Amino acid sequence: MTEPEPKTFDLIFQSRASARGKMRNDINVTWPAMGESFDLPTDEGGFHGGDGTAPPPLAYFTAALTGCVMTQIRAFAKRLKIEVEALDLQVNLHWRGEQKGQEPYQSMPVGFQIDIRLESPQSVEERINLIEHAILGCFIEQSLSKEFEVIHRLWVEDHWITI
Amino acid sequence: MTEPEPKTFDLIFQSRASARGKMRNDINVTWPAMGESFDLPTDEGGFHGGDGTAPPPLAYFTAALTGCVMTQIRAFAKRLKIEVEALDLQVNLHWRGEQKGQEPYQSMPVGFQIDIRLESPQSVEERINLIEHAILGCFIEQSLSKEFEVIHRLWVEDHWITI
Repeated sequence: MTEPEPKTFDLIFQSRASARGKMRNDINVTWPAMGESFDLPTDEGGFHGGDGTAPPPLAYFTAALTGCVMTQIRAFAKRLKIEVEALDLQVNLHWRGEQKGQEPYQSMPVGFQIDIRLESPQSVEERINLIEHAILGCFIEQSLSKEFEVIHRLWVEDHWITI
Repeated sequence: MTEPEPKTFDLIFQSRASARGKMRNDINVTWPAMGESFDLPTDEGGFHGGDGTAPPPLAYFTAALTGCVMTQIRAFAKRLKIEVEALDLQVNLHWRGEQKGQEPYQSMPVGFQIDIRLESPQSVEERINLIEHAILGCFIEQSLSKEFEVIHRLWVEDHWITI
């Protein structure tokens, strides 16, 4: 049997956004291929000069990365015939800013950690295989720099295994 | 006068999330240092096996990147004494998936484009300087891989300038 030819598909998301008020951004996101549209405004709290009318951008980013990994775990579980009885994540995203005097600061990622509790009747090896596929299939993870560490851990019985 | 010592600060966002229903993820994001908490669930539409009860993860990602750049443009405009009369962005994020047969697919970024309309009485050079600082200060941009192109363009009179 010959190896099947790989097929590719394109995925495009777009936004149109306007800055309004102090720090609020009115952002409309579209997924043209699906005809879907989402209003996802951002704002900053009072400490950063905003009015706190919406989440800050990094809150959306945190939800996006968390949700991306979880969604691919469940989508690929079906293809790999792995039963997911429960799936819970804890994610910790750590950045640093560096500033000289009153100049604009420069930002850099320090490390991201994604802790996964995946209850399943399948073996630890099969669950790790599923998570590895989910990481490769997660569009956000694959867009991240390789210059900082993204740690993934799976809870097994009474301890964490780093994947 | 001696160069001021750079100061650093840490920025940490966290999430706790549970998979519920078909493809919905209930995600709570916290910004511990600010004591802020945001419920940001994700879901997929019917085409991807979900119930469409919330935006998909990539919609949040698109809003996050858009809002991050806009927020830093406005935050740093104050420090650089640049007046922002109007700020509008159009963002296009392009990924590709590659799949063999029914195996889980692999994903990769193709290219991101961020088009900026920044009305200001300041010169083009000052506006470009502001945008360059905003890119360096945007935590999300600085977390992205250098292996694909993120294009930034500024609209000037009647044409785009690539920054």
